[in-house]
Amino acid sequence: MNGAESLVGTLAAGGCEVCFTNPGTSEMHIVAALDRQTRIRSVLALFEGVVTAAADGYARMTGKPACTLLHLGPGFANGIANLHNARRARVPIVNIIGDHATFHLKHDTPLQSDIEALARPLSAWLRTSRSASEVGQDAADALLAAQCGGGQVATLIVPADLAWLEVGKIAPIAPAPNLPIPSSTTVDRAAKMLRANLHTAILVSGNALYGGGLAAAARITAATGARLLAPYPITRIERGSGRAVIDRIPYVPEQATELLREFRQLILVGGMSPFSYFAAPGRGSKLTPADCEIFSLAEPQQDCAGALHALIDALSLRGSSAALLEKKAELAIPHGDITLPGLATAIAATLPENAILIDESMTSGRGIFAATRGAKHHDVLVNTGGSIGIAMPLAVGAAVACPDRRVLCLSADGSGMYTSQALWTMAREDLKVTTVIFANREYTVLRREFANLGIGKPGPQARSLFDIGRPNLDWVALAKGMGVPGRKVASLEEFGNALQAGYESQGPSLIEVPV
Amino acid sequence: MNGAESLVGTLAAGGCEVCFTNPGTSEMHIVAALDRQTRIRSVLALFEGVVTAAADGYARMTGKPACTLLHLGPGFANGIANLHNARRARVPIVNIIGDHATFHLKHDTPLQSDIEALARPLSAWLRTSRSASEVGQDAADALLAAQCGGGQVATLIVPADLAWLEVGKIAPIAPAPNLPIPSSTTVDRAAKMLRANLHTAILVSGNALYGGGLAAAARITAATGARLLAPYPITRIERGSGRAVIDRIPYVPEQATELLREFRQLILVGGMSPFSYFAAPGRGSKLTPADCEIFSLAEPQQDCAGALHALIDALSLRGSSAALLEKKAELAIPHGDITLPGLATAIAATLPENAILIDESMTSGRGIFAATRGAKHHDVLVNTGGSIGIAMPLAVGAAVACPDRRVLCLSADGSGMYTSQALWTMAREDLKVTTVIFANREYTVLRREFANLGIGKPGPQARSLFDIGRPNLDWVALAKGMGVPGRKVASLEEFGNALQAGYESQGPSLIEVPV
Repeated sequence: MNGAESLVGTLAAGGCEVCFTNPGTSEMHIVAALDRQTRIRSVLALFEGVVTAAADGYARMTGKPACTLLHLGPGFANGIANLHNARRARVPIVNIIGDHATFHLKHDTPLQSDIEALARPLSAWLRTSRSASEVGQDAADALLAAQCGGGQVATLIVPADLAWLEVGKIAPIAPAPNLPIPSSTTVDRAAKMLRANLHTAILVSGNALYGGGLAAAARITAATGARLLAPYPITRIERGSGRAVIDRIPYVPEQATELLREFRQLILVGGMSPFSYFAAPGRGSKLTPADCEIFSLAEPQQDCAGALHALIDALSLRGSSAALLEKKAELAIPHGDITLPGLATAIAATLPENAILIDESMTSGRGIFAATRGAKHHDVLVNTGGSIGIAMPLAVGAAVACPDRRVLCLSADGSGMYTSQALWTMAREDLKVTTVIFANREYTVLRREFANLGIGKPGPQARSLFDIGRPNLDWVALAKGMGVPGRKVASLEEFGNALQAGYESQGPSLIEVPV
Repeated sequence: MNGAESLVGTLAAGGCEVCFTNPGTSEMHIVAALDRQTRIRSVLALFEGVVTAAADGYARMTGKPACTLLHLGPGFANGIANLHNARRARVPIVNIIGDHATFHLKHDTPLQSDIEALARPLSAWLRTSRSASEVGQDAADALLAAQCGGGQVATLIVPADLAWLEVGKIAPIAPAPNLPIPSSTTVDRAAKMLRANLHTAILVSGNALYGGGLAAAARITAATGARLLAPYPITRIERGSGRAVIDRIPYVPEQATELLREFRQLILVGGMSPFSYFAAPGRGSKLTPADCEIFSLAEPQQDCAGALHALIDALSLRGSSAALLEKKAELAIPHGDITLPGLATAIAATLPENAILIDESMTSGRGIFAATRGAKHHDVLVNTGGSIGIAMPLAVGAAVACPDRRVLCLSADGSGMYTSQALWTMAREDLKVTTVIFANREYTVLRREFANLGIGKPGPQARSLFDIGRPNLDWVALAKGMGVPGRKVASLEEFGNALQAGYESQGPSLIEVPV
């Protein structure tokens, strides 16, 4: 058994089932090892930004790490932007990066770079294998590290000669540690805050946004009158009929401030205090009122759901009911000209039961979260780190993770151009993803920020840098170029019909919506 | 004048004429400053991998730095792979990266990252501005640093509040230093080697590959019988009739070893001793014979052309003639089925006078360098760092630099999918670039390396990871999607005609060639 086989064998033994990859020459022995086993499915992407976000999407839906296999420093570098998002999402990912053979490094050949330096800022755990006999143990350590703290990016660099030397061995797998729950003092403090007669919000993250954690949060807010909130960046949230009533803090600082104005107490569960994404001249970054007491019930690396169950006990709420959304009357697909509210209604009306909704629709989609509040049960995944270009590859990962669920992927045109290569992987793997491109032909967020910053009216050069409609991007052609059938719609009815056709097809499809 | 205006004003005063960019919110004041002046042209790209390689292409053709304007850590990260190539190309580039306002950093909001850590491995010079009044001086220092050592990547991080504070001032511009030439001892040693009766090769890089430097090299080899060689990775080389007879060391190690076998002396001019790109089990990385003496006449950061002129003096070769290629009889466009040699001949036959040929055709294009040996005068730019996905954005930069020259951009399909967004910028800027996609529908280099490494026959998973033809990429559709007219050709004659039509058109075009 060589080092590569011990690597792959250990990952498989540890429950890793998928490898998203774009390998190169220095990873050929690892490719050969993947080739000789059947427990890990290899999924090829044509660009590493797709690889890393697909691993993120897979982890968000399964709670388990996928591995990525990346080619040297530059291959890893192409995946950094979406690893930035994955780091913010707190998901488990194991990156395997090949390096030159150790004896080759002294020649500083063209593809050489300082891989550790590139990987360090993104990786909670980072190691370069030092001997072929230890590669298996390195893989086991990486797997364990990825599953600590609620989910982390672990990166293992494997020099080519350590992959090919015949001294590898499969390492034993350590069980992933349970997440710690907060102390009873902390829980009692939160309980006391909820018993006070003050406007209180509970801002939940992590595993308190779905399943039992979210149900617990809904029981607490029903019993105490506190308001349940989600942050703007959300790794995964369960929504729709039968699920908790929960509002999301808006992206626009003025809207967020307005929402938070009434609260005198804010209890954080696994997240950070809300601040604006960006600073602006003469404006503070803080979104909560000055006299709002902020208390953290659970830190991000703790068990948010467990913290809420402990809080239920502390509040003696066992058996109490939750504030849940009732099933809405079926919505009809709207008719007429395309409007942003109409698109949101059409999405809410057609969303299939148990769908996964990926939302990177940026400014065009700001009404969708509200519109889908009472839609059929679904999960929503959004951009957690603000690095644009995540939607389509995240959809790849979610669809690989959940082959029985329909994935609706909403992307702005500007962000979509970052990682459109994901469409090819959707076609290759027959993934049931319906991608909607909101084609407003500009970086609207930048035009608005320019106006908000008080810099004056944009002139020709600035306007040109916000305008991505010259030439116009033809998304139906781009999708065709990558093997995905697409159509452009001209009315809300056409849009609704295209969505339904997408949900019924056996593979991916794309809908371009001029907005 | 705010910090952003002092930044832009200083860059303009220092001769920076182009800014390749994809800005974000934190760069809006710099966008406003670009907007309010007319000396720097802003060129938008839809992905930062295009931005950085375009700056590289611009620098290769002008010898001057363009600036890039990038959005925070993730925006920079997307440009790293092609900065890796630019670093190896030793070209001058000034990266400007926006950061959050200094007072906002403590909140660790979603887009925050350690930008310095990401930029350090790529940057010969790196600074974060510390005060708005110093941003102008920081820009001047960055410009100077970029022009040192023959060309370097200089990176300046500008926090948003330092861009908007009204205390900026334009900084004085220091002249770029002259490159040092080697000592007379070193030159005399090289001269002595050339007078010895031994098989000798001169391996030239940097500014010895074009203009007066290359002419000097050709005179030396004509007089001494030494063979003139270029490395496989070339920043820029001048070729065709009337230019030097020069051979390129092949990528394939066995072919390189064969070429270098006869030499007992190798004189390096601005480059490194040749090694294989990758190591393999049981094979050394060294490509030169064990008994070949290797001597460096000029280091990469020295003046290669100046070193050769000094060598001419040391050899008393003033007024001697050079070994130059004669003008060949006009080649006819070949007819018949598409073959790799036929494609190479068609390219050589049609290449217009003074063209710029960008070559990232990978395995499909290995005959092109030989075939274009006696073509009309042209420059060739290739991938210098081995990070694939450079051709189309490099063509953008070369075409912006040289609006009066035709650019032929040769890309493999696999590498082309990394940064195909460059097509959109070609269309937007009406760049006279003819892009040829060699569509062999696989990562051929990986299939070959897998076979060469002695791992055995690839099974289904490995074969699948080399196969990018399932589904097939339709490059004509992809080009249409980004506003570039394309056609797919089925014969050599069609290919030749499509090339000629491309050279005659007023903007970009794309030719897909199934190979």
